Amino acid sequence: MSLKLYHAEPAANSLKSLLALKEKGLEFESIYVDLHKFEQHQPWFIAINPEGQVPVLDHEGAIITHTTVINEYLEDAFPDAPPLRPPDPLGKARMRYWNKFVDEHVMNYVSMWGWHRMVGVIARSIEGGEFERLVSRIPLYEQREKWRTARSGFSESDLANATRKIEVAVDKVENQLRSTPWIAGDMYTLADINFFSMCGMGVERMFPHIGNAQRCPRLLDWARRMRQRPGVIAALAMPDHTNPALRTFTGEAH
Amino acid sequence: MSLKLYHAEPAANSLKSLLALKEKGLEFESIYVDLHKFEQHQPWFIAINPEGQVPVLDHEGAIITHTTVINEYLEDAFPDAPPLRPPDPLGKARMRYWNKFVDEHVMNYVSMWGWHRMVGVIARSIEGGEFERLVSRIPLYEQREKWRTARSGFSESDLANATRKIEVAVDKVENQLRSTPWIAGDMYTLADINFFSMCGMGVERMFPHIGNAQRCPRLLDWARRMRQRPGVIAALAMPDHTNPALRTFTGEAH
Repeated sequence: MSLKLYHAEPAANSLKSLLALKEKGLEFESIYVDLHKFEQHQPWFIAINPEGQVPVLDHEGAIITHTTVINEYLEDAFPDAPPLRPPDPLGKARMRYWNKFVDEHVMNYVSMWGWHRMVGVIARSIEGGEFERLVSRIPLYEQREKWRTARSGFSESDLANATRKIEVAVDKVENQLRSTPWIAGDMYTLADINFFSMCGMGVERMFPHIGNAQRCPRLLDWARRMRQRPGVIAALAMPDHTNPALRTFTGEAH
Repeated sequence: MSLKLYHAEPAANSLKSLLALKEKGLEFESIYVDLHKFEQHQPWFIAINPEGQVPVLDHEGAIITHTTVINEYLEDAFPDAPPLRPPDPLGKARMRYWNKFVDEHVMNYVSMWGWHRMVGVIARSIEGGEFERLVSRIPLYEQREKWRTARSGFSESDLANATRKIEVAVDKVENQLRSTPWIAGDMYTLADINFFSMCGMGVERMFPHIGNAQRCPRLLDWARRMRQRPGVIAALAMPDHTNPALRTFTGEAH
């Protein structure tokens, strides 16, 4: 098959590219990378992506990383598949404005709470020497620091700032949905896929004091419309090997 | 004229869009926004860009913000002008990988040193009550915090981390230039414009212990090739109202 995706569970970054592939109806070989076993830091995977991060797209041997880049690549490489990017320059700019906002002001802050609640439990369950051995294999400095902080605990001020960022993002999307049905305008785009994967899908369960019908009724309606799409249903039906105990108590949404 | 650019001095964000316009040979109306007078936070400008940031592109009344988005917009809207984006999907993905890297891992760290050395001097020269009045008009929370921190001083650990990020970036670009003449490959692209505006132009003067011929000879050669381009010469020749005293002692490069 000409397309392969190396990915983990259908959530966050992995979901974001699974969604684009499923929405476009592109056939691909799914290669599951087990984050619970730190496969993304093993030599065979580092040989594919030196940054040690999922997902990774392999298109006839060309390796593409970073989900926003992967998803625009699919638009460029498969122009005959259903488009997820507006045809006009201004529509593209609106979509990229939102993608940039999600990438720079949303993703890492939702992620911090996910790591605080879930990855911290995993990190603390590993014996100290073994933990440092695992962390030492991680290529990116920022990821090594994130694992260490997940183990020792994120600071109250960092968590409070993350909550503030998520509140700003939810209010911003809610406000946009007052005037357009989708985040970047009249068309369903990669910006919807991005915000859904990184925040919108889980906001009701992860942050009930933010993601509720009083504060963001339009956002919740938008998330319902997303979940009804065949492409979204297909992506969310991909295998999920998350420890069910962790999934339940952390409020991670599925 | 159908294109207007609201911008400040030809450095950093403003330079990044001036460069794209000049390289593409697009005629535009230049509207200077005086950051020394905090014009970007005044009501007339907030009415144009609610985020209170320069530069801003106005194309026949459509407002586009954020330089990476603006510069891709120019590619989409003016396909007959000289291209700064590869024609093939993989080339576009390589360019966007680097743009994302500069946007997320370079810009803010060089900026912190610039603010530490230059904006801090300006911020501390303003009387406390007047300073808080000026800061209270800034729309973005992050920008208000940045001004307050510039006044009180960035922490040693934040500055050390910024230096580390710049070292990583310089080494990464240097390594890339071992195999390709330009940052994203064989073609001069928006990725070169991005890294030049945010780091490459000033690295030799701002960070001589990093931007030197021992550590990054290819990067310095690349910067020389950039400076010889007519588009770059034209962009750098745009008016510069920076206080010359500040410019000299801070080592800001021009």
